[in-house]
Amino acid sequence: MSVRPSKRAPDAMRAVSIERGVARYAEGSCLVKFGETHVLCCASLEEKAPGWLRGQGKGWVTAEYAMLPRATHERTRREVTSGKPSGRTQEIQRLIGRSLRAVVDLKMIGERQITVDCDVLQADGGTRTASITGAWVALHDCLAWMKARDMLKGPALKDHVAAVSCGIYKGAPVLDLDYAEDSSAETDANFVLTGSGGIVEIQGTAEGTPFSEEELLELLRLAKAGCASLVDLQKLAVA
Amino acid sequence: MSVRPSKRAPDAMRAVSIERGVARYAEGSCLVKFGETHVLCCASLEEKAPGWLRGQGKGWVTAEYAMLPRATHERTRREVTSGKPSGRTQEIQRLIGRSLRAVVDLKMIGERQITVDCDVLQADGGTRTASITGAWVALHDCLAWMKARDMLKGPALKDHVAAVSCGIYKGAPVLDLDYAEDSSAETDANFVLTGSGGIVEIQGTAEGTPFSEEELLELLRLAKAGCASLVDLQKLAVA
Amino acid sequence: MSVRPSKRAPDAMRAVSIERGVARYAEGSCLVKFGETHVLCCASLEEKAPGWLRGQGKGWVTAEYAMLPRATHERTRREVTSGKPSGRTQEIQRLIGRSLRAVVDLKMIGERQITVDCDVLQADGGTRTASITGAWVALHDCLAWMKARDMLKGPALKDHVAAVSCGIYKGAPVLDLDYAEDSSAETDANFVLTGSGGIVEIQGTAEGTPFSEEELLELLRLAKAGCASLVDLQKLAVA
Amino acid sequence: MSVRPSKRAPDAMRAVSIERGVARYAEGSCLVKFGETHVLCCASLEEKAPGWLRGQGKGWVTAEYAMLPRATHERTRREVTSGKPSGRTQEIQRLIGRSLRAVVDLKMIGERQITVDCDVLQADGGTRTASITGAWVALHDCLAWMKARDMLKGPALKDHVAAVSCGIYKGAPVLDLDYAEDSSAETDANFVLTGSGGIVEIQGTAEGTPFSEEELLELLRLAKAGCASLVDLQKLAVA
Amino acid sequence: MSVRPSKRAPDAMRAVSIERGVARYAEGSCLVKFGETHVLCCASLEEKAPGWLRGQGKGWVTAEYAMLPRATHERTRREVTSGKPSGRTQEIQRLIGRSLRAVVDLKMIGERQITVDCDVLQADGGTRTASITGAWVALHDCLAWMKARDMLKGPALKDHVAAVSCGIYKGAPVLDLDYAEDSSAETDANFVLTGSGGIVEIQGTAEGTPFSEEELLELLRLAKAGCASLVDLQKLAVA
Amino acid sequence: MSVRPSKRAPDAMRAVSIERGVARYAEGSCLVKFGETHVLCCASLEEKAPGWLRGQGKGWVTAEYAMLPRATHERTRREVTSGKPSGRTQEIQRLIGRSLRAVVDLKMIGERQITVDCDVLQADGGTRTASITGAWVALHDCLAWMKARDMLKGPALKDHVAAVSCGIYKGAPVLDLDYAEDSSAETDANFVLTGSGGIVEIQGTAEGTPFSEEELLELLRLAKAGCASLVDLQKLAVA
Repeated sequence: MSVRPSKRAPDAMRAVSIERGVARYAEGSCLVKFGETHVLCCASLEEKAPGWLRGQGKGWVTAEYAMLPRATHERTRREVTSGKPSGRTQEIQRLIGRSLRAVVDLKMIGERQITVDCDVLQADGGTRTASITGAWVALHDCLAWMKARDMLKGPALKDHVAAVSCGIYKGAPVLDLDYAEDSSAETDANFVLTGSGGIVEIQGTAEGTPFSEEELLELLRLAKAGCASLVDLQKLAVA
Repeated sequence: MSVRPSKRAPDAMRAVSIERGVARYAEGSCLVKFGETHVLCCASLEEKAPGWLRGQGKGWVTAEYAMLPRATHERTRREVTSGKPSGRTQEIQRLIGRSLRAVVDLKMIGERQITVDCDVLQADGGTRTASITGAWVALHDCLAWMKARDMLKGPALKDHVAAVSCGIYKGAPVLDLDYAEDSSAETDANFVLTGSGGIVEIQGTAEGTPFSEEELLELLRLAKAGCASLVDLQKLAVA
Repeated sequence: MSVRPSKRAPDAMRAVSIERGVARYAEGSCLVKFGETHVLCCASLEEKAPGWLRGQGKGWVTAEYAMLPRATHERTRREVTSGKPSGRTQEIQRLIGRSLRAVVDLKMIGERQITVDCDVLQADGGTRTASITGAWVALHDCLAWMKARDMLKGPALKDHVAAVSCGIYKGAPVLDLDYAEDSSAETDANFVLTGSGGIVEIQGTAEGTPFSEEELLELLRLAKAGCASLVDLQKLAVA
Repeated sequence: MSVRPSKRAPDAMRAVSIERGVARYAEGSCLVKFGETHVLCCASLEEKAPGWLRGQGKGWVTAEYAMLPRATHERTRREVTSGKPSGRTQEIQRLIGRSLRAVVDLKMIGERQITVDCDVLQADGGTRTASITGAWVALHDCLAWMKARDMLKGPALKDHVAAVSCGIYKGAPVLDLDYAEDSSAETDANFVLTGSGGIVEIQGTAEGTPFSEEELLELLRLAKAGCASLVDLQKLAVA
Repeated sequence: MSVRPSKRAPDAMRAVSIERGVARYAEGSCLVKFGETHVLCCASLEEKAPGWLRGQGKGWVTAEYAMLPRATHERTRREVTSGKPSGRTQEIQRLIGRSLRAVVDLKMIGERQITVDCDVLQADGGTRTASITGAWVALHDCLAWMKARDMLKGPALKDHVAAVSCGIYKGAPVLDLDYAEDSSAETDANFVLTGSGGIVEIQGTAEGTPFSEEELLELLRLAKAGCASLVDLQKLAVA
Repeated sequence: MSVRPSKRAPDAMRAVSIERGVARYAEGSCLVKFGETHVLCCASLEEKAPGWLRGQGKGWVTAEYAMLPRATHERTRREVTSGKPSGRTQEIQRLIGRSLRAVVDLKMIGERQITVDCDVLQADGGTRTASITGAWVALHDCLAWMKARDMLKGPALKDHVAAVSCGIYKGAPVLDLDYAEDSSAETDANFVLTGSGGIVEIQGTAEGTPFSEEELLELLRLAKAGCASLVDLQKLAVA
C-alpha cells in the first residue's frame, strides 16, 4: 500500500519513453518523457573546441538547460529577461555536462565541441535526471553521425549514463519523485550512474531532518534499479 | 511551372496544421506547423495587469518569443548567455502582441494580463507569422477558459487574426516563404490580417531592389488569400 | 478645413530644413528639422569592416539612434542606466541602417564601415523618418569625403532615400504626423522611398481599427509626394 | 609669447558663450560653448524626491553627463552598448551634481528632484567644466520657472557656481586647457568656485612629475580669474 | 606510508583553527583556517525577512561566498567585472545556506534575515567546507547576540553543522583534500554532517573513473571522523 | 582641547601599522591599518601588458578596490549582485592606480602588468588613503620579487607615495578623518604626496560651505606632515 500521490509502488518509476530523431536539423536528438516531465534533447556538433582546450588534440562535451516559461504549473519568467541564467540553471547544466563527459573519450572526437541542449517542454519533477538520460541518446546519435562521416579517431562512447532521483517521502524511501513528492520530500537525492553500475555523481540533500547512512544506502539501491531500467530503455531506443 | 525550391505554386502555402491543448498546464495552447516551421504557443493568465495600467479597469495581452538553440540549421547561441533579447526577438514579440491586441477588447478581461509564449521548436522561415496564427488559438482557448469561470465582463475576442509572409523571389511574387526563399528573396513582406480582411500590420522590406506599388498590391492579394485559409484552419481547430 | 491640431492641410508636411556640416569632426553631418523634431546626424568612417564581412572585399553601412533625455515633453530615462537599448531603439536603428544600405553599393567602399549616428535633440513625432532623411545627407558627405581622398572604387551612392510617416487621424489620411497626431492616430505608417520612387520599406500598423487596402493606397500616395519634396531638399542641401 | 597651440596667453580663456532657452520642453536649458567644446544643458523638474530622501521635506539636485558618439575626433562607442556608464562618466556626473548642490538650498524646493542633463555635442577639452558652468544657467532657469508657479518655499539659489580647468603645459601654468593641451599637460586641475570666490571642489592630478604647493597656488590664481569671468557671463545670460 | 603531497596520513585533516570575533561590526564572525585555506565568516542580522516570506512569522538564514582575487596561486578576475557571480559561486553559496538552515529553527528568529558572508582570503582547496564550518560559528554568535537582546522566541540553534571534503587520490581514499590533491583526485566528495552525525548534504563526483558503493562508504567513514573533530573545535571556539 | 570624537589632537593620525607578506601567493602584499580601517593589499604580476600598450616596450600598473560586505557598520550589498562596480568604487580604483603610476618608471618593468588589489576588511573612514599607502608597500615587494629574478630593466620605483585625508570638522582643520568625522565634516580633502613632498593628487570637496584658499593651505600643511610620517612607516616596513 503506497503513500505516493501517484499510487506508484515505492520502487516504481513513472512511464518512461524515449523518441529519437525528433529534431530535423540536430546531429542527434530525442524527446524523453518521465511521466508528465518532457524534455527535448538536441546534440549539436561544432567544428571548434573551446579556447582553453585548443591544441591539445581533444574535444569537449557540454550541455545547456532551460525550461519553457509555461512548462510549469505557474508561468515562470524567462531567464533572458533577468539577464543571466539562475544559479539553479547553471548547477543543472554543469551536472549534465559532467555526467556526459564521464562516459566519453574526449580524445576520440578531435578538436570539436558537442553541445547537448536540454529544453524542458513540460515539468513535473525530475527534469535534470530526465535530461541526463535523454542527453545520452542525443549524444549517442551525434557520435554515430560523426562515425558515419569518419570523424572519430576511435570508439568515443565508453558506457551508458542515466540518472534518477530518489527521496524520503513521508518517511519512506521512494524512486523517481514527481513534483508533488519533490516539493514535500524530507530528503531528495539525485544519482547519476553508468551502464556498468559505477557512480558518476551523487547529490543528496536533507530538506528537513538529516538522513542516516542506512537511508542513503536504501536510496542508492533504488537508484541502481531505476537506472538499470533506464539504460535498458536507452538500448532499445538506439537499437 | 514554379521557380520555388519547394516546387510549390506561387500562391500555395506550405502544409499548415494546428494542434490544440498540447501544454498540460497552460490556460490555452497549440502547436502550429507551417511546413517544417513548428511553434509551441502557450497562453498564461496572470491575475494582475501591468503597473502602468492599474486602476483603469482593463487588462493587457502581450507576447514573448524565442527560438530553441537547435531550431535552426546551425545551432544559435541562447539569448540568455548574451544577457538580453536581441533586437530581432524584441521586434517579433512586440509585433505578436500588437497583432493579438488588435482583436481583443481589453476592457472585457478585467485587470489581468494574458501572456502568449511563442517558442519555436523548429525553424524553416516564417516563424513570426506562424507564431501569430497559433497565438490566436492559444488566446482563444485562454479566453474560453476564463469564460467558463465567469471571468469575462462580456465578449472579449472581436475577430480572428492570422499572418503570412510574401515576397518577390526570382522576380515572382510568392506566398509563405520558407527559409530557402526567405534568405534570397528580393523583397520580403509580412502581413497581419483579421478574419474580416482588415489590415492590422504590414511590414515590407526591399532586401535588394526597391519594389513598386504594383508589386506591393500583388503581395497583398496573395496574403489575403493565405490568411483567409489560415483563418479557416483556426476555425476548424477551435470548433 | 483641416482637422489637424497644427492646422496643416492633410497633405502638408511641417517646415523641413537640413543644415550640413554641423559637426566639426565627423566625415559627414547635418542637423535635420521636421518642424519641432530636430535630429543631429553624423557619419563616421572606420577603416575596418565588421568581423563577419572580412575578406569579402566589401564594406558596411550601419546606424545608431538615441534620444537625449529631455528631447521629449517629459524627461526620459537614459538607456545606459537600464543597461541596454530598448526594443524601440533597436527597431529604429535597424530600420535606418537597412534604408541607407538600399541605396549604397557596398562593394565600392572597400572593407570599411560607415556608422551614421542619429541623435534626437528634440522630439515632436517622426524622429525615425527625419533620421533617415538626414542620415542620407550625412552619408552623402562622408562618401564625398572618401571620394576626395580616392578611397572609393567607383560610384557608391545609387539613389536618394527619404522617409515620412502618414496616418489616419480622426478618419482622414494625413501626411507627416507630429506628436499630437501620432499619439492618437488610428493607423500609423512609415514609408521609406528612393529618389526614383521605389519602395524600400513600408511599416503600417493599425493602432485601433484595422485599415483597408484603399486606405493603404491613399497613405502611399501622400508619402510619395512627401518623400519627393524631401528628396528635393536633400538635393538643395548637397548642391 | 605663448607656448600654447592655440596661441592664447597663459591666462586667456577660449571664447565662451551661453545661449539660454534652447530646449523647447525643458524647464531650463542652455547651450554653453568653451571654444569648440559645446554642451547642451537641460534642467528637468520631477515632482518626487529620491526614495532615500522621502519625508524629510527637502529635495535633490542631480546631474547626468554623456557625450554624443561623434563629439570627439574619433567616434566613441555609445556607453549603452557596453551596458553601463564608464567610471569617467560617473565621476563627472557626480562632480556636476555636487557642484550644483553647493549653491542650492534644498529645503526651498520641497520634495522634488531637479536633474540637469549635460550632453556634449562637441568635445575639445574641458567638457566637465563647461558642463558645470552651463548647468548653473539651466538650473537657474528651472528655479525661476518654479518661482513663477509659486513652487519654492523661499530663495533657493544661494550663489553662482562655475568651473574651469588649469594645468601646467610645457612647464607653464595655463588657464582653460583645450584638447591639445589637456592630452599632454604635466598637471591637470579642475576648480569649481562660487560667485563669491569660495572653493567648492578642487581636483588636481600630476600626470607626469608631481607638482609643488607654489604651482598649486598659481593654478588657483588663474582659476579664480577664469571663474570670475564665467560668472560675469552667467549674469549676462540670465539678466 | 602516505601518497599525499602533504605527507598527511589518509585520515588526517590539515591543522584547523577557528578565531572568533575578528570583525568589529558584525553580529558574529570568525576566521577559520583549514591549513592554508583561510575564510573570514561574518554573520549580519537584518530586521526584515525576504519578501517571499513576509507574514509567515519566521525568518531566513542565507549565505554569500566570494574569493579575493589573489586568494589563489594565480590572480582570479573579480566577478563584479563580469557582471554576475559564476555558476560555481552560486552553487557554493546555495550549499552553505542550505547547510546552515538544516540546524536552525527559523520560527525562533522572527521575521528577520541572517546573512553569513564567507570571504576566502586564501585558498588551498576545501574553501566550501571551511566556509560551512566557520559559518556555523559566526551564526552561533549572531544568535547569541540576539538572545542577549531578547530577540529570540526560543532556542534557535538545533545542532552543530560542519563539512569536509574527501576523495580518492592515486587510488586511496583520503580526508580533507588540499589544492594539490583536489586538482588531480579521481573522485571528489563533499560531506555536510551535523553534530549528531546526520547527513545534511552529500555531493560526490567522479572526475575520472566512476566510483563504487564501497568507495562511497569509505569516504563517508572518513568524513564522519573529520566532521566529529571539526565539531569538537567549534565547541572549543564558542565555549 | 580637541573637538574630535576620538579625542585626537587636530594634527594626530590614528595608530598606523603595516604588516608585510601576509598573502602567501601574491608577489607582494601587506595588511595596512589606519586605526580601525584595515585593508589587505596584494600585488599580482601578469606577464602581459594591456592590449592598448602592446609593442611599446613598457608595462602598466593598475589597482582594484572593494569592500567586504560587512567591513562597514551596516552590511553593504556586494557589488557583483548589482552587476557592476559603483561609481565610487571606480573613482577610488582609478585614483589608486594613478597614484602608484606617479612613482613607477613603466619602461623598467617591460611589457607586463602589475595589479594591486586593495580589499577593505574593515572600514572606519579613510579607506582610499590607507589603500594607497599600503599599495605602495605591496608594489615595492612585487618589484623586489621581479628584481630578484632579473626581470627589471633598471630601477623601477622612483619614490614613495602615501595618502591621507584632511577635513574641516566643526570649524577646525583636522588630519586623518575617521568615519564619525568624515560623515559630518564641512570639507573633506584627500592628498596623495610623494616621499619628496611633491603633490600627486589633491581632491578637495566642500560638503557644506565652500572653503577658502587659507583653509586649503592649512589642510595641505596637515597632509604633508601626515604623509611624511606614513612614508617613515613604509620605510620601516620594507627595511
